[in-house]
Amino acid sequence: MQTVFTIQTRGQALYEFTNDVARWIAGQGDGLLTLLVQHTSASLLIQENADPDVQRDLLAYFARLVPPADAPEMSYLTHLMEGPDDMPAHIKASVLPVSISIPVARGRMMLGTWQGIYLFEHRDAPHQRRIAAHFRPD
Amino acid sequence: MQTVFTIQTRGQALYEFTNDVARWIAGQGDGLLTLLVQHTSASLLIQENADPDVQRDLLAYFARLVPPADAPEMSYLTHLMEGPDDMPAHIKASVLPVSISIPVARGRMMLGTWQGIYLFEHRDAPHQRRIAAHFRPD
Amino acid sequence: MQTVFTIQTRGQALYEFTNDVARWIAGQGDGLLTLLVQHTSASLLIQENADPDVQRDLLAYFARLVPPADAPEMSYLTHLMEGPDDMPAHIKASVLPVSISIPVARGRMMLGTWQGIYLFEHRDAPHQRRIAAHFRPD
Repeated sequence: MQTVFTIQTRGQALYEFTNDVARWIAGQGDGLLTLLVQHTSASLLIQENADPDVQRDLLAYFARLVPPADAPEMSYLTHLMEGPDDMPAHIKASVLPVSISIPVARGRMMLGTWQGIYLFEHRDAPHQRRIAAHFRPD
Repeated sequence: MQTVFTIQTRGQALYEFTNDVARWIAGQGDGLLTLLVQHTSASLLIQENADPDVQRDLLAYFARLVPPADAPEMSYLTHLMEGPDDMPAHIKASVLPVSISIPVARGRMMLGTWQGIYLFEHRDAPHQRRIAAHFRPD
Repeated sequence: MQTVFTIQTRGQALYEFTNDVARWIAGQGDGLLTLLVQHTSASLLIQENADPDVQRDLLAYFARLVPPADAPEMSYLTHLMEGPDDMPAHIKASVLPVSISIPVARGRMMLGTWQGIYLFEHRDAPHQRRIAAHFRPD
């Protein structure tokens, strides 16, 4: 069972789509769910979905870990065709997950209480992002 | 075939549980093993299990990559409810793996010679951590 | 269906092997592909394979994120037996992916247009690297 989830982004942020995935596998039995983001400048992330401050702090941290290419300390970067957020987006997409696998029991993902599934957009401009999904029943 | 491994932690450290997983799939045939940590402040990690200095250095590195929230350079953090190790734990849990998949041949994980499977605890206080495990025979 | 891909490296660099994987699953139907690098000082990476500047910038970034052990700021490292690139290689192998799963549709990986699969070598000396591969048809 396969599908593609599509997420329209509006700049660097975390976009939760836990419920879309949960609906897609509802009614299935046990099995394994796998997600793959089909881009090199956006990531998947499983993180806390209770306090929105966590998302804000994650964005602030990764903006410091990988500053824009026009920051003095990033002057060694050469892949700048699409602007100062171009190469930093590839770097963040290397550090953060590209694929995630989640065991499923009786049609429900075996996530922890506070775990939500996010698309982490690393580009400033709006993008339509695709996440390939695969569910294999046991 | 599914189970949950439980690990009692005692502060920030790497807790190896390779043997628990090996025992669980012993006697199975070929297939695919998937592990998912059900928390947003602890990680999974496959790393060297020969020299314990590797674990010490990993802890020292990540403590510098993501300093506690009371370090001056982390003053921008806002999610601080549970103390200075709270938000840094979420950040480390974003950078390090949340799920890992391992091919299995004749009941044995296809790990390299020095690869061990660890729960990486990012919080100072003791926690009981859960890792969902899924094995699907071919 | 299982195999091991072998890659001979010649120092720190990204070695693409997308075509090797594509050939291996060509002719298969739908399913799930999983790759696991069997080492603790090399990584897997899915990244852009159009502009080679991306690979150069990734190498430059990670060399700065995790400097060699003889850099003053890394003087706290203790696992140095195999030289100044030893422990930094383990750290990079913790931050970058050890396993990746990719949905397959009609014998083709569901990768995005610009996504290539790389072995990321973190050691200076040449190494023969092994990647365990598992394909399970639906």
